[in-house]
Amino acid sequence: MDVKHFLAKQSVFINEQIKRLTPSGIPEKLFDAMAYSLSAGGKRLRPILVLESAKAVGMEDIKDIVDIAVATEFIHTYSLIHDDLPAMDDDELRRGKPTCHIVYGEAIAILAGDGLQSYAFELISKNRTVPPDKLLKVINILSHGTGIYGMVGGQAADILHEKENSFNDINFIHTHKTAKFIQSCCQMGGVLADATEEEEISLKNYGLYIGLAFQIQDDILDEIGDEKKLGKKTKKDRDKNKLTYPSIYGIEESKRIAREYVEKAVSEVEKLKRPEILIEIAKFIINREV
Amino acid sequence: MDVKHFLAKQSVFINEQIKRLTPSGIPEKLFDAMAYSLSAGGKRLRPILVLESAKAVGMEDIKDIVDIAVATEFIHTYSLIHDDLPAMDDDELRRGKPTCHIVYGEAIAILAGDGLQSYAFELISKNRTVPPDKLLKVINILSHGTGIYGMVGGQAADILHEKENSFNDINFIHTHKTAKFIQSCCQMGGVLADATEEEEISLKNYGLYIGLAFQIQDDILDEIGDEKKLGKKTKKDRDKNKLTYPSIYGIEESKRIAREYVEKAVSEVEKLKRPEILIEIAKFIINREV
Repeated sequence: MDVKHFLAKQSVFINEQIKRLTPSGIPEKLFDAMAYSLSAGGKRLRPILVLESAKAVGMEDIKDIVDIAVATEFIHTYSLIHDDLPAMDDDELRRGKPTCHIVYGEAIAILAGDGLQSYAFELISKNRTVPPDKLLKVINILSHGTGIYGMVGGQAADILHEKENSFNDINFIHTHKTAKFIQSCCQMGGVLADATEEEEISLKNYGLYIGLAFQIQDDILDEIGDEKKLGKKTKKDRDKNKLTYPSIYGIEESKRIAREYVEKAVSEVEKLKRPEILIEIAKFIINREV
Repeated sequence: MDVKHFLAKQSVFINEQIKRLTPSGIPEKLFDAMAYSLSAGGKRLRPILVLESAKAVGMEDIKDIVDIAVATEFIHTYSLIHDDLPAMDDDELRRGKPTCHIVYGEAIAILAGDGLQSYAFELISKNRTVPPDKLLKVINILSHGTGIYGMVGGQAADILHEKENSFNDINFIHTHKTAKFIQSCCQMGGVLADATEEEEISLKNYGLYIGLAFQIQDDILDEIGDEKKLGKKTKKDRDKNKLTYPSIYGIEESKRIAREYVEKAVSEVEKLKRPEILIEIAKFIINREV
């Protein structure tokens, strides 16, 4: 299969769903800021992973869980808006477009991020087709993976260690900043599709490994990627003296480690009912240029 | 009863619970920033309202819902940290202490706020004594009342209208910025205590009315309050040309309107099983000096 084509098709589907689910009836500029950042594109990897993880363990009809998948992109978008703020990474460009605070101002960008986070949980909690106990577990997985024990904790560690250059924290940062959220998406798909305990663990491990590979590839692209294709400046990490894989291990060794994670990820899901797409996604993660 | 004494005792209890529930095992400075803002004091009105609303409709033992009540204070604290940021209200003092970003820097303050929000939902979702369907309803009420359709939406409206001076939006701002969150707390207590539909509506109305009275009193205290008692500068709203009740109606008329809301609130809960404390809290809200 052509995974790039498949992912492009899926991201078109997710984009339509994001448009359908972008909440209205709120102060205009707040809506505009949220809609602007939500529609700025991107791979839509997280919602796709929720859906494909569910299919991998046997779910046939994903229509009842689409809203939940999209909620992960709301969380991802909130994190990007806040990351780009002047006090954080101070980025003026994201996916080739001016960042949220450049267009709407810092105050509205902070509130758009806050609102996207709460709306993600609201969206999941108002689902009326998935049983409450499953929705609650999904909220638990998502809040844990994206909060202080996951993404937010990793961001904090990343910022606090910018000025140092020790080997020991890079794996903490990568695991928490990036991999735990991706892991949560895979686990959520499993839970929603009634995965067995064993299948759920496989999906969790798969998510962790591809998440780590994803962040290493991000670090590599920041060093040697194409600014035009990426839609943002490269070599930012180096300028900020951030801890990255290339800065510690060099490009070639970083690539090797990422390949190893992908192999581990693949071996985790091979035993699932329909693992093909997850396997292709894992391979794509280290071959992507964007 | 001496409501001031009662509330002081309850806030000591809530403070102990906050201490017990402040999450650890995260990057140190992030923990410090969260713990600093969580322990900065305050009336703890929101968790107290969750618990007292539950008692008002007949709940005898509140121990299973204490964590959920505390989660509302986590959300409140996140909102204060973000409100105080330079891009927002730019406040250096809160409850007589330097604000979070003054002590820990803006980046960590943004992340501490983000993390407190997600942890509030994590805390509720990991409760193992309340049935899942009730927890899910509570998450829905809380995310709705504090997100874009509530607090975040109101904050956005407040910021966007700072420079204007029209009468028509003050009630939108007060309702969303303040009242909807307080309303959510009262409704949550009702839901957790198996309130009837009618009781739940009474608690919702009560919460809305005391929330509106609370914000009017806040506006009044910003005009004529004691800076030392409040632990923050007064007349900030005026300096920022914010829409407030005193700026539109004057102090005396604002006080009258607040009293009217309190009367409405009282008449909503009089019919409940044990309304005494809620009635006293409603009256306290417009007599408070802090």
